[in-house]
Amino acid sequence: MNPKRLEQQIAFVREADKLKTIDRQTLLTDASRRENDAEHSWHLALMALLLGEYAGDKTLNLLHVVRMVLIHDLVEIDAGDTYCYDEAGYRDKTQRETAAAERIFNLLPPDQAAGIRALWDEFEASETPESKFANALDRLQPLMHNVFTDGQMWKRHGIVKSQVIDRNRKIADGAPDLWTFARSLIEKAVDDGHLDP
Amino acid sequence: MNPKRLEQQIAFVREADKLKTIDRQTLLTDASRRENDAEHSWHLALMALLLGEYAGDKTLNLLHVVRMVLIHDLVEIDAGDTYCYDEAGYRDKTQRETAAAERIFNLLPPDQAAGIRALWDEFEASETPESKFANALDRLQPLMHNVFTDGQMWKRHGIVKSQVIDRNRKIADGAPDLWTFARSLIEKAVDDGHLDP
Ligand SMILES: [Ca+2]
Repeated sequence: MNPKRLEQQIAFVREADKLKTIDRQTLLTDASRRENDAEHSWHLALMALLLGEYAGDKTLNLLHVVRMVLIHDLVEIDAGDTYCYDEAGYRDKTQRETAAAERIFNLLPPDQAAGIRALWDEFEASETPESKFANALDRLQPLMHNVFTDGQMWKRHGIVKSQVIDRNRKIADGAPDLWTFARSLIEKAVDDGHLDP
Repeated sequence: MNPKRLEQQIAFVREADKLKTIDRQTLLTDASRRENDAEHSWHLALMALLLGEYAGDKTLNLLHVVRMVLIHDLVEIDAGDTYCYDEAGYRDKTQRETAAAERIFNLLPPDQAAGIRALWDEFEASETPESKFANALDRLQPLMHNVFTDGQMWKRHGIVKSQVIDRNRKIADGAPDLWTFARSLIEKAVDDGHLDP
């Protein structure tokens, strides 16, 4: 055992705890409070395990998907959660998150820092089968929460159907069947008066 | 796509959201509030990815470990978190958790319900290399949080060093090097006056 290496790993594990304090613009399904990034990441990982059969590419590496969703939001420890419909926030999102990745990932030993950075870059680029599926889950989960909480967050932010369609269309790239399901949820939300047409 | 199957899977994913409302007897490292089971499960999965090199068995299947830690506390949605030093609570813990497993896992299609039940049974039995490592992480993480928060939860519950040693000794079965590290944390907590000798 290399004590310096373990010390770096533990420092990272300790820093990662802060993800539990980064709140998102998504409510828990009981609408009791906003969800945080750590809970969200856990939920995506669980979904990856259970919904892998809907991935567009059936040969994908599920461990790779799970790795990606577990680490995909760590940069928000420094950069904060940028609401997906916040155009101003999106302008400097990449810059803020890249600076965060530099600081946070480099708490790890160099080999692991490089590995986690590569995973995060892959998730962001969304070009491989694994990252397309991970991104599909990252969109589907908050969509489901919005529907299950009668669109409270959509209403609060004045979001309409076309924005929800545009935001979530990417689900089709990673999981065509889940996009079919997502569209049915969106239609139902409109029919029920929880999303403005 | 089988609509009934997807419906069952989504019902489970929705039910799983409740894990975010099950609070544990562990504080976040900033001591701002208690941690919940979903956050805890995410943290363990991240640790599995980063600390796998310390597993006693170097040939273990990391995806299997990650699967186990992601689902290991789901039964607490019904059974609640039983504090690890609560002897009365432990008396009917198995019974309460088994009933919970029956209800919650069976929201899934039968093949996935059986798969997740087998994973949970394996975690509980702690006999395979993967489950021993998963259990080691499940002990190490709250120990770290207790040390990083100056033993506040130990003091609140009147826990002393010998209890912490007894509870965490099992770390050695799954990850001998992490038990060495854990013992050094415990000694430091005693030296610093955060844990009664
Ligand atoms: Ca537990």
